[in-house]
Amino acid sequence: MADSNGSAVDTKSRFVEIYARLKSEILEDPAFDYTDDSRQWIDRMLDYNVPGGKLNRGISVVDSYKLLKEGNELTDDEFFLSSVLGWCIEWLQAYFLVLDDIMDNSHTRRGQPCWFRLPKVGLIAANDGILLDNHIPRMLKRHFREKPYYVDLLDLFNEVEFQTASGQMLDLITTHDGEQDLSKYKFPVYQRIVQYKTAYYSFYLPVACALVMSGENLDNFVGVKNILVEMGTYFQVQDDYLDCFGSPEVIGKIGTDIEDFKCSWLIVQALERANENQMKLLSENYGKSDPASVTKVKAIFNDLNLQSVFAEYEAASYEQLICSIEAQPSKAVQEVLKSFLHKIYKRQK
Amino acid sequence: MADSNGSAVDTKSRFVEIYARLKSEILEDPAFDYTDDSRQWIDRMLDYNVPGGKLNRGISVVDSYKLLKEGNELTDDEFFLSSVLGWCIEWLQAYFLVLDDIMDNSHTRRGQPCWFRLPKVGLIAANDGILLDNHIPRMLKRHFREKPYYVDLLDLFNEVEFQTASGQMLDLITTHDGEQDLSKYKFPVYQRIVQYKTAYYSFYLPVACALVMSGENLDNFVGVKNILVEMGTYFQVQDDYLDCFGSPEVIGKIGTDIEDFKCSWLIVQALERANENQMKLLSENYGKSDPASVTKVKAIFNDLNLQSVFAEYEAASYEQLICSIEAQPSKAVQEVLKSFLHKIYKRQK
Repeated sequence: MADSNGSAVDTKSRFVEIYARLKSEILEDPAFDYTDDSRQWIDRMLDYNVPGGKLNRGISVVDSYKLLKEGNELTDDEFFLSSVLGWCIEWLQAYFLVLDDIMDNSHTRRGQPCWFRLPKVGLIAANDGILLDNHIPRMLKRHFREKPYYVDLLDLFNEVEFQTASGQMLDLITTHDGEQDLSKYKFPVYQRIVQYKTAYYSFYLPVACALVMSGENLDNFVGVKNILVEMGTYFQVQDDYLDCFGSPEVIGKIGTDIEDFKCSWLIVQALERANENQMKLLSENYGKSDPASVTKVKAIFNDLNLQSVFAEYEAASYEQLICSIEAQPSKAVQEVLKSFLHKIYKRQK
Repeated sequence: MADSNGSAVDTKSRFVEIYARLKSEILEDPAFDYTDDSRQWIDRMLDYNVPGGKLNRGISVVDSYKLLKEGNELTDDEFFLSSVLGWCIEWLQAYFLVLDDIMDNSHTRRGQPCWFRLPKVGLIAANDGILLDNHIPRMLKRHFREKPYYVDLLDLFNEVEFQTASGQMLDLITTHDGEQDLSKYKFPVYQRIVQYKTAYYSFYLPVACALVMSGENLDNFVGVKNILVEMGTYFQVQDDYLDCFGSPEVIGKIGTDIEDFKCSWLIVQALERANENQMKLLSENYGKSDPASVTKVKAIFNDLNLQSVFAEYEAASYEQLICSIEAQPSKAVQEVLKSFLHKIYKRQK
């Protein structure tokens, strides 16, 4: 990464400070006549749901924009504007998480109860999710309305949001379609879900924001998009691996993909390799919540050596990504992509 | 209205035909790689939720645009484009209804089970709502990207959606805040909820779309906006009145505002007029689902002569609206506003 560790810390703390300003702008938006109660509600809802994550996606916009300026320092204004775009992605993430938690009937998120689980909230959370989404164009309008690339930003967020929601649909109808049937869990299905549901907004969107702010036309960066989507797939494979093989103390949660009948990379790999008997055991035990079933599934994952399969996948993905990145004509763009890759390569959480 | 009855029928059937084209464009959107299953899901979800309403909001865009052309017939292209905007409003409405029904735990909508009540759907409906919302910018981009007013359309939809979701929040936190407490149900609270939750998207948005398509700058139409918001308030008062006093066969549903502890115009009026004893009975019975409680509340509404209070309100609103409309400088704009008003004045459903 171009940043020394000291300046990465500095970037994060400056990024974090900007949240308070964006929140107070929303709470004073002249398009809505807040009552005291409703202003307080939004204040609390934002604090609970927006800033508590790792902020990787948001800070990536600032980092990427800095690298695209080829090592030059950002002016205060440039730092601020790239941070606004970063926070828009964090708002988007909060929106998806609030609604996903309702749909998945989850209990905890980021080490606290899911927002809809709070006694005073309940299904009002669904509307709060919608509000989070609606705040994004408000922030974009306030800070970018006069920029020549304003409409490109709107189009970009709209497209990525459409793709993410479509990926979520694919995931939901694949996972919940009738009786549990493992035969549809194949790699192309998996890949398509991950690409749309996760990769576009988590990997492509931050870089695309930085490119748009740099005055670039995204039509010229289809290759970059493909690399980022591949990186996003690799990231999700790690996530699925850690859900089962990561240590709960490090990743901060106890994985339940097996219990939830998730179309996870591990089950897809297991199904490709299982013999008849293992296949039967997987069918009988995958997606059951009793601990004995989960143990049986994990035993098969171990018997099939999925830990080594993952290690090989990880190494091959890395090689492949580096190779695609180095074929990119712009050194600055290469830097951006490598910085992303090194943030996630061999991560433990 | 400028239309003869024959041409109104014609407008509606031409408007309805356009839905199929918009749907198939969404099902072929190159930004998402549909599987057969997911394409079929969206196809069914759209048919179930989008076209089944009265389509008043959508058709109003076409009617208003026609009036703004001062009686000239629309070209095929103009008819189509104004219909696309109309359908965007119908999509927006579908989005709100799908999510509102989940939040209100409703059972039926437009004479059929709510979408989320279907066995195969459940909470996937929340994501379907999000998708409906995401389809709007896809339609706008496809058909308006090259228009000089494209960015104004995006801004308009974004602002109105933000206002509607904010109004919905106000309604939710007012209605569900802790123990049932009628003391907060006062007219200004009611008015603010209705203005944001209903009036902007149902009344202002269709006319604003027509104005933007006509090349107008919405900043010059603040007076028109205020009139339409007032008309929207009048419309919601009618809705609340019909919920209790309308005939179920005509309005197509059985009202449950009393059972649901809704901040309805009727309870606001009743609280302004009730004596101590009536006040006590309202507190004890409003928001209870047993029929005896509902009957007691209705008896008080009758004792307080709310039917006449409503008739007076309706006459006064009409006078006031006509007076404001006739103060508008443009005859064409006056026509648009009067056509709207006459569609709803003294409606029975």
